[in-house]
Amino acid sequence: MIKARIVVTLKNGVLDPQGKAIEGALGALGFSGVGAVRQGKVFDVEIDGEDRAAAEASLRDMCAKLLANTVIENYTVEIA
Amino acid sequence: MIKARIVVTLKNGVLDPQGKAIEGALGALGFSGVGAVRQGKVFDVEIDGEDRAAAEASLRDMCAKLLANTVIENYTVEIA
Repeated sequence: MIKARIVVTLKNGVLDPQGKAIEGALGALGFSGVGAVRQGKVFDVEIDGEDRAAAEASLRDMCAKLLANTVIENYTVEIA
Repeated sequence: MIKARIVVTLKNGVLDPQGKAIEGALGALGFSGVGAVRQGKVFDVEIDGEDRAAAEASLRDMCAKLLANTVIENYTVEIA
């Protein structure tokens, strides 16, 4: 079994109101010196088999088809 | 400026209906051999200054106070 982690983040220039809200909340809690905060998603996926190259191709396909909106999001695939 | 990435994931044993839904959707899209899928959150945070140890302490404090629910979630802090 292969374990992989997919991280989906917003592209630069795409507004992130959720990140902005967290920035404001951290300031309100007294954390100083906090610059930009951007929020993204992480998916931990288990794939049957031991073929890492095939798994990576399959995971990239999953990102393109379901897990990420490639118009506004970037994704990275890391195989453990 | 220090850039950090915080990853928040559900603890083992905590139900993840969103992950289950993704698992089902991947199956419906024709991806075979997909085992468990767990969804988490990622935060990219910029901190002013160059003191990495202080930044890490501050980031862990942010996780405990705002970014993670430590009853059901684990977090990791990575400084770039």
